[in-house]
Amino acid sequence: MGEFGLIRRLTENLNNENPSTHKGVGDDCAVLTPTEGTQTLVTTDLLMEGVHFDLMYVPLKHLGYKAVMVNLSDIYAMNGTPRQITVSLAVSKKFSVEDIEELYDGMKLACEKHHVDIVGGDTTSSLTGLAISITAIGEALPKDIVYRNGAKETDLICVSGNLGASYMGLQLLEREKVVFNQQMKEAQESANKAEMERLQNAQPDFTGREYLLERQLKPEARRDIIEALAKANIHPTSMMDISDGLSSELLHICSQSKVGCRVYEDRIPLDYQTAAMAEEMNMNVTTCALNGGEDYELLFTVPLSENDAVSKIEDVRVIGYITNESLGKILICRDGNEFELKAQGWNPLQ
Amino acid sequence: MGEFGLIRRLTENLNNENPSTHKGVGDDCAVLTPTEGTQTLVTTDLLMEGVHFDLMYVPLKHLGYKAVMVNLSDIYAMNGTPRQITVSLAVSKKFSVEDIEELYDGMKLACEKHHVDIVGGDTTSSLTGLAISITAIGEALPKDIVYRNGAKETDLICVSGNLGASYMGLQLLEREKVVFNQQMKEAQESANKAEMERLQNAQPDFTGREYLLERQLKPEARRDIIEALAKANIHPTSMMDISDGLSSELLHICSQSKVGCRVYEDRIPLDYQTAAMAEEMNMNVTTCALNGGEDYELLFTVPLSENDAVSKIEDVRVIGYITNESLGKILICRDGNEFELKAQGWNPLQ
Repeated sequence: MGEFGLIRRLTENLNNENPSTHKGVGDDCAVLTPTEGTQTLVTTDLLMEGVHFDLMYVPLKHLGYKAVMVNLSDIYAMNGTPRQITVSLAVSKKFSVEDIEELYDGMKLACEKHHVDIVGGDTTSSLTGLAISITAIGEALPKDIVYRNGAKETDLICVSGNLGASYMGLQLLEREKVVFNQQMKEAQESANKAEMERLQNAQPDFTGREYLLERQLKPEARRDIIEALAKANIHPTSMMDISDGLSSELLHICSQSKVGCRVYEDRIPLDYQTAAMAEEMNMNVTTCALNGGEDYELLFTVPLSENDAVSKIEDVRVIGYITNESLGKILICRDGNEFELKAQGWNPLQ
Repeated sequence: MGEFGLIRRLTENLNNENPSTHKGVGDDCAVLTPTEGTQTLVTTDLLMEGVHFDLMYVPLKHLGYKAVMVNLSDIYAMNGTPRQITVSLAVSKKFSVEDIEELYDGMKLACEKHHVDIVGGDTTSSLTGLAISITAIGEALPKDIVYRNGAKETDLICVSGNLGASYMGLQLLEREKVVFNQQMKEAQESANKAEMERLQNAQPDFTGREYLLERQLKPEARRDIIEALAKANIHPTSMMDISDGLSSELLHICSQSKVGCRVYEDRIPLDYQTAAMAEEMNMNVTTCALNGGEDYELLFTVPLSENDAVSKIEDVRVIGYITNESLGKILICRDGNEFELKAQGWNPLQ
């Protein structure tokens, strides 16, 4: 159907919701009308098949949904409101038009949920696999924007939700993949067609682990937390989203704010399924929470005086406080031992 | 050196030139301050190795330069001013840090030339080859923005520069590649090490073809034309840049403006080198100019009353005029024969 045909098919039912979207898909550029007095927030992500996602266990619709969410999460992490995204896709021959529509459906779903318009993009071919590049555009009043560099001594360190679940979900999926590949190999070697067919159609049993999978496959950007903070009249002094793991992000805030921190292991929020899965896999659950990544929760600091107010917000937990830079970045373990925090977050370049 | 190290190295010398760039690289989002009264223009492109570029003959610095230029060209095509870009790269193991710096140097050069800031992006790994995704952001006063849908009957159709040269440059490079591969194969088969070494170090002789290569490898976005139009007080009724070939772009303007057109073959601007190369390759030079693509010239329409004014602008040529939709989209050949224009532009999905 060609590039233009595919773009037409993908974009024909796009409804622009935002008054700031003046012109969406169909010209050399999208044209946006910034809301008076706001600044514009821009973030972008490039996701590559085999590096950021494995289509063996990631459904395309989920992939589209997540690809959008991780960008919206960056806008919320500035305390902004996402308004538009552009979507560029590079697609190899192994994908059908229906596949791409499914991917796009997931993107549209994420956009609808957050009242975001798809205003442009690029669709092209790839020699190998799928590449997805999304740019999100948002806005906020200058006084509302929260950077990473505003944390001050005695500020409280807060996180939303819980950590490590997405990483455990990934471990679970990877484990099932290894099992499947092994069983399939054996079936092929013994030319057992019935077994091969059974394996093709079998679904692994994830009972009791649904939450971990949901966190990995369908993360949600925490607009609710941004709204709750605004409602409680709390302006964080620094904020970012947790995509590479709590340790790595805390170190970013500390280095940009030129401060130290003390974080308490027993305050790090964990879900029961995360802890159970870590135990089953013989992994340290705190390590998973600190370094796992892909949580897309918010990490932020608030003045000590907001202790009562922030403690009342549902799904937010104070995990420590900001110190003088000279005191280092410290994790206080359950047994009272102290360790220097290190960034061991997921590194897509290794 | 990891993702953060590479990003730091690539972005450490970035100077933000634009007053509208409030915060560049280093937070969850870039923060831009729109100039009062302007609308924001957004365009994005995803370039994949093996589809959009061949590193056998495209130097990385040129690739970076071109990747930026094609996006700036889209901003100018709206009659806007580019202000910022984001750059996302996915890089496979075959590239060294120095390679990526070279690519980035080309991007910086293009940005400096057009006073554009690099304000963010993403750097990640790829299993196969290089992927480059650039988003450009620009601005313009609402009254200045030119869309594709404003062409009116009797308007003059204008193009800047000349057409088909970039396509002929590509043909030339592809021909040399075939020759090189053939010679190398023969040398390898006869285990002729001296010849293999000679071939590795040999540079093909492109004397007299430099312009074609420059157009293919180092296209320039036509800010000068936008400035000349403004200076002459000419407001085009429609405009776009020529990336997929004149035919394809003219058909876009006609269909979006609901008009027809008559274009004269003998008015289509060609460079001498383009014509000579087409003859040597036994190709129809008009076909190359109509369907070649990657010219990054501007195609625009102006009211008939601007005939004198537009004719005085250097490097702009009137090639035809807009008609009623019912009259079709017609090319009038040198011999007086008339043909329906068809889009046979380069299709990256085929």
